Formats: sequence, C-alpha cells, structure tokens
Amino acid sequence: MTKESTGDITDALSTFVARTRWEDIPETVRKEAARSIFNGFGTALGGAGDPGIRRMVAALLPFAGAPTSTLVGQERRADMLTACFVNAASTNVFDFDDTHEGTILHPTAPVAPPLFALAEQEPISGRRILSAFALGVEIECRLANAVSPGHYRRGWHITSTCGVFGAAAAAGKLLGLDAEGLRNALGIASAQSSGLVETLGTMAKSVGVGASARGGLLAALMAKEGVEGPARPLEGSLGFLRVTSDAPDMAPILSDLGEKWELCRNMYKPYPCGVVLNPVIDACLSLLDEDGIDPRAIESVTVTGNPLLKERTDRPDPRTGRQAQVSAQHAIAVVLLRGAAGVAEFGDDAVGDPDVAALRARVRPVAVDETMPVESIVMQVSLRDGGMRTRRVDTPSGGLERPLTDEELERKFTALAAHGCPGLDPAPLIAALWSLAETEDAGTVMRLARP
Amino acid sequence: MTKESTGDITDALSTFVARTRWEDIPETVRKEAARSIFNGFGTALGGAGDPGIRRMVAALLPFAGAPTSTLVGQERRADMLTACFVNAASTNVFDFDDTHEGTILHPTAPVAPPLFALAEQEPISGRRILSAFALGVEIECRLANAVSPGHYRRGWHITSTCGVFGAAAAAGKLLGLDAEGLRNALGIASAQSSGLVETLGTMAKSVGVGASARGGLLAALMAKEGVEGPARPLEGSLGFLRVTSDAPDMAPILSDLGEKWELCRNMYKPYPCGVVLNPVIDACLSLLDEDGIDPRAIESVTVTGNPLLKERTDRPDPRTGRQAQVSAQHAIAVVLLRGAAGVAEFGDDAVGDPDVAALRARVRPVAVDETMPVESIVMQVSLRDGGMRTRRVDTPSGGLERPLTDEELERKFTALAAHGCPGLDPAPLIAALWSLAETEDAGTVMRLARP
Repeated sequence: MTKESTGDITDALSTFVARTRWEDIPETVRKEAARSIFNGFGTALGGAGDPGIRRMVAALLPFAGAPTSTLVGQERRADMLTACFVNAASTNVFDFDDTHEGTILHPTAPVAPPLFALAEQEPISGRRILSAFALGVEIECRLANAVSPGHYRRGWHITSTCGVFGAAAAAGKLLGLDAEGLRNALGIASAQSSGLVETLGTMAKSVGVGASARGGLLAALMAKEGVEGPARPLEGSLGFLRVTSDAPDMAPILSDLGEKWELCRNMYKPYPCGVVLNPVIDACLSLLDEDGIDPRAIESVTVTGNPLLKERTDRPDPRTGRQAQVSAQHAIAVVLLRGAAGVAEFGDDAVGDPDVAALRARVRPVAVDETMPVESIVMQVSLRDGGMRTRRVDTPSGGLERPLTDEELERKFTALAAHGCPGLDPAPLIAALWSLAETEDAGTVMRLARP
Repeated sequence: MTKESTGDITDALSTFVARTRWEDIPETVRKEAARSIFNGFGTALGGAGDPGIRRMVAALLPFAGAPTSTLVGQERRADMLTACFVNAASTNVFDFDDTHEGTILHPTAPVAPPLFALAEQEPISGRRILSAFALGVEIECRLANAVSPGHYRRGWHITSTCGVFGAAAAAGKLLGLDAEGLRNALGIASAQSSGLVETLGTMAKSVGVGASARGGLLAALMAKEGVEGPARPLEGSLGFLRVTSDAPDMAPILSDLGEKWELCRNMYKPYPCGVVLNPVIDACLSLLDEDGIDPRAIESVTVTGNPLLKERTDRPDPRTGRQAQVSAQHAIAVVLLRGAAGVAEFGDDAVGDPDVAALRARVRPVAVDETMPVESIVMQVSLRDGGMRTRRVDTPSGGLERPLTDEELERKFTALAAHGCPGLDPAPLIAALWSLAETEDAGTVMRLARP
C-alpha cells in the first residue's frame, strides 16, 4: 500500500489493521514492540506507588466491576476498563515512558494496557499481542504525524488525544473486529478523544492518559456489540483531524503503510527528566566512571549547550522534584554526588538533600553556544587543586542514534520496580516479557506484575 | 458578583458554586430546574429502548461494579459511573431533550444523571439536587456561551464538551467540595472534554454525551480523593476555552453571576424533529383541532417560510426515521393523518406507512418568502372540494416566547414513557418529579424510574 487519496483514511487504516498478520510485520518492528512493552511495564511499576495514582485508584475502585484484571504493581485488581485507566496512567505518570520522534507522543501508555487486560480474560498468544500493539502504535503515531506540530502547540496532549485511536485499533484487532468493526471502533474513539497540555505538571494529566486507554478499549468492545460510528471520523469535514488541527497533513497517513513502521522511531528515556538533559547526565556519568572525579574536590561546573538547554533547564534553585526534572544545576549536582540518575534522584527528597544543594550552588548558569546542535553539550569541571576535566557529548543516550540497549532497559526496569513496587521480584517478569513472542498465554505476564 | 477580570475564571466559578445556597436561587430558576429535570426523565425513558443504548449497555455491564444505581427505564442496574453514562446517553439519544438558546447545548443530559446517581447512595434532599443542577447548568452554559458559535461550527459537540464541566461542578457541589476542590474537579474534567459533531446521526454521538456525565462525576469523585488539576484549566493559555475556540469571549462568563441564570434560556422540544419544523407541526395540529380537516379530503399542501426552512427540510422522499425528522413533507403528512407528533411518527415504521407516503406526495416543495422570520410559517391546505384552509404561525410552541406548559410536558412525558418503557406506570414518577423540591430523599425518584 503506498499513496492513496485522502478521502478514505478511516477505511484504509481499518482495512490495514484487519488484514495485517504477524507474518507481515518485520522482525525489527516485532523487536521494537517487545522493547516498548518491556519499557512500559517498567515505568508502570515505577509509577504504581505515585500518590496521584493511588488517589485515582481510591476514587475508581468503589465502582469497579469484577476484579479480573491486574493493576500493575498493585495488590488489588479491578475490571478490565478500570485496569486500563490505571495502568496507562501509571505507565506515563513520571513521563519516563517511551517517546515517538517528532510528535513527542508516548506510544505505549494508551495501547498496551487494553491488550494485557484482554489477555487476562482468555489465553492470547504473545504474537497476537505484539501484532496488535504494533498496529495500534502505527495508527496513533500516523494520526499524530498528521496533526503535528500545530495540535500540541495549540494545547492538545497528543498522547491522550491520539492514543485513544491507537488503543481502539489495537483492542479491536485482538477482539477480531473486521474492517467495518474497526471503523466503528475508531468512530466511537473519536467521541472520546480528549486531553489538554494545560494539565501537564498536575495529576489531571494522568486522567487524560488513563481515559485514552480505557476509552479505546471501550470503543472496541462497543463496536463488537454493534454500536456504529460515522463513516469518516478521522478525515470528515468535522472529524478529528480537521477539528484538532488547523492544517492537518493528511496525505502521509496512508503512505507506505505496512512498509514504514512508526515503532522504528520510538525512543526510551534513560533518565526521568527533561530530554535535553540527557547529554548533561551522560557527561556526568562518564566523568565519574572514566575520570574517577571526587565530588568533594569540585570547585565549579560549567555546562555549555544550544540556547534551548538554557531556556529549558537553567534553574539554579529548584524547590520540588518536578522542578528538579528540568534543572541542569540539580541534575549535575545529584548525578555527580550519587553516580545515579533514577527516579529517586529527581524526587522531592533529593531536592532537599543539603549535600546536593551545596554542590548545586557550585554549578554555574548554563552557557550558550549558538553553533552547537541541540543534542550536544560540553561540560567543564574545575577542581579545587586547579585541575580541569572536560567532556563533550554529541550523541546522547536514549536517542535514535544511541538507543538504550536491552541491558540498559533491564537496569532501568529493575530500578523502577524497586522504587515503585519494592515487594515485587522483577526477575521472572523480566524473563516473561523478553520471551513474549514465544508464549501462548500473555496473561501470565500480568500475573507476574503484582507484588 | 458582576464584572471581574478574566484572569481567574476557574477560581471565580468554583467559588460561586461552593457558596451558592438554595436560598440564593430565584424561584423562577428553581422552577425551571424542576421542569428541565422532569423533561429529562421523560426523554431518558423514551430513549431507554433504543437499540444503540441497548448495545452500549451490553458492552458496559460485564465490567460494571455493584448495581447500586438505576438505569432509567431499564430493569438492570449498575454502578454509579456506568449509570451516569447510560442515563445521559438515553436522555439525549433522540435529541428530544432540552436546548439552551443560542448555543444549542442540551443542558440536562450531562448534569442530571450524576446527581440522581449520588442520591441513590445516601438520602439527599430534592432542594440540594435542584441547587446543584442549576449550578451545573450555569457552568456548562456560560462556558458554551464563551466558545459559541465558533466551537460548534468547528466540529465540537458542545453538549459533550461543555457538559463534562457542568457535570463536574454539579456533582462536586453535592459531594460538598470547597472552592479548591471544585477547581480541581474542573481541571480533571478538562482532561476528559470530548465530542465531535462528525458523530451526529450515529450511535457514537451518544458515547460522547454519556462520557461527559460519567467524566464529570468521576472528576468530582477524584477531586474529593485529593487528585489535583491545573490552576486555570478553563482560561489558561492552553486551557479549554482557548484550545477549543479560536476567539473565546471570556468576559461574559463572570458577568451577573448569580443574577442572570442560564436556565431561563432553556427550551423543551414539543416534537422529536428538527426545531424549524415546530411551527409547521403547530399549524397541522391547529388545522385538525380547529378546522376539523379530514386528511382524505386533501388535494395538496403548501408551506411557506424563511429560506432556512427549505434548506433544512425540503425532503420529499425520506427513507429513514432520521431523515423524516428533517422532512417537512413527512412531518405534514404524518401529523395530518395521525393527529400526533411523537417519537413513533418520526420512526422508520412511519416512514414506510403507505398512507403517509401517499399524503407526503401531495405536499408541495417548500416555498420561500425571504421576508418571513425564521420562526414563522404559512400553511395552505387545498381540499378536493375546492376549499382552502390557511394557517399562519409566528410563535411556535417550545420557543422561549411560547414555552411548553407543565401539562404539555406531562403529555410529552407520558408518550415517551409508553414508547420507550411500556412496562412502567409513569404516574407515580410524574408526581415524585413535580414534588422534588419537597422530598428529603431524591433517590425515590430513581426507584420509580424502573419498569
């Protein structure tokens, strides 16, 4: 399938999802689906203990149905729809989940929870899960491409608004919907597409993300029951694409469908903070590992980068963990002191640590070199003995040019599990996730994700 | 409270909702609240048997929680959140519910269901229900005013998108939230605001309306548990008003708050069809009642009106009930033959009735008089004996100048109940609804709304 008219986008996407089989999905895409799901389970475990998530669960559980479905990282269970909400919210709450290049959509949070909830209802093979996941991500990211960058800039939280379509497509695939059923599912999803950037930085952001996963599954379940939607919920004159974007770029939505896969543009964050800080933290860790710097010997630190680095992260005196996530001064101080850059290093406690505060005060304002690309930084550490150490990073970890290895993903996963769900032994879950393509019952993964 | 700056809209609305008591609400507003709720129960009963509603219920019930809450007009019950979804969808499915002048928002469908669901959890007085209802309608309609007309024109289904805020405010009031809690509820609602005009004419429309009621209640429940939202979800630079409207008119949102009430601009439809057909049907019923026309004696019928009448309703050969709802030819034929204009007269069966089809063929194309206002029509009936009857209508029933009387609302209610829920005796429910302001336990209303 290559270029087509833009008049039948919903039909073409529905047909694509209905027809595509495991055999049609390239090995690199299958592997990236597995890595995305792996990373998503890690961030969901890490988020499970977040106070906002716990409050949402407290509000939802009195009205939840039969407890058939796992809440990742939590002891209690819930009905499928409630579990989708909670698991999607947990996956994304720290913004430590995956990121689609160009759109900054977080692909896994809306799409994976419906699939694993369905896998707890009856045995479903890992290959069917991986296929449906790849297709769901394809739908949400192609829609996101079409409405970017105006959609997010206007104020739409793209993970939620586009995610509900990915969730509907993926869940519909697993429920065996045909093309017409999938078109209805996308239409029902269109009635539920929501999420505002204004909510970012608050717990309400996670409500939008949770609702996208739940709404997508609900759309597929309703379509299976015969609930009908409009013929053109995406490309119609009053449909999603035109309503939420001033100038949607529709033609690429169907270009090279089944040949180019959006999962190949998915990235995994190495650190739970603003992505422009990735090279800064890489430099700190490298200085510690290779130069053996003693943080007590540091006189001052200077970091130089693209103007964006200063604009986003020149924040010498953060007061909360959330502010610390976008503070170069904090990131440098805490990583040089602790040799780690996990969730704990960007929490409220780390901000208040007097040793961190003392070193933070020795980090100078972010310096600007307009000739440097946005991925690059130079760090200079002046030591009390007059020495100087310099590190330049041009290819930060976590980017598409230097993706996290499977081993790095495992370390991230283990640290997140320990942070958010200390009662869980992550080893069996890690093993089950890496062998997802071989299992005949993907629901076993969920049973291993409870403490 | 009169004019205020637009910088603190969310705070000002939250404070208004938190502080306003039954004593602060004028008698006319209380009465209109009761009439709106009365009308809404009628349309919910009428919609309860709709196939789309039944399919949605079939999709939702396997995952519903403890059955504490009535699904209006249905035997089975569900948890509060599920009941809100279903009852809001039922109320609005035929578009026979109330209409807010100027915005064409249907105020009751999103706001009433959360209140009556809460009233089944513990005894809540009718006065508290009516107060919370009036406040919820005030919030949703003032927001709708601010984004109209661009919002709907762009493709937002305003009942759903604004309704979720009304539902959150009303439910929050009943849950006893203070101003800060209500601000959080509005923020959580903002993450769930959805609904596309593209879905109108399909079952997916009702998904948006159902989601608005459910999402609003959920927002209030979550705010009560301490889930926090942004400070300015409505007026923020990336908040609801600016994101969903190109030019929101913010200043009037706070003007005369507590003095002018939007419920006074609420209208109740006399007939389940396009609103421009109201004077046409009035004329038919008047010709039958006062002139005693025999439909078998009719040679031809001509109706003349504003150009809008022709544009919207000149449809000589409708094939479905939905098309019949916007066909002047059908409306004239079926009403003159049957002397009634209820849901049955605009259903698929009536369209296929050969007697109706025969008379429909005798109705001429809609004639245009550009000097006539949109509310006016002239109808001329030529009889086989050469006689001629003429009727002019300038103040159609159901408009703000000729609102339905309580007795007319009762007749509408009874007909809707018989259509959608023939197993229910409507008399006790009607009595309970008219005495809502006097009851100490509004939940009794819901117990009377089951067959």
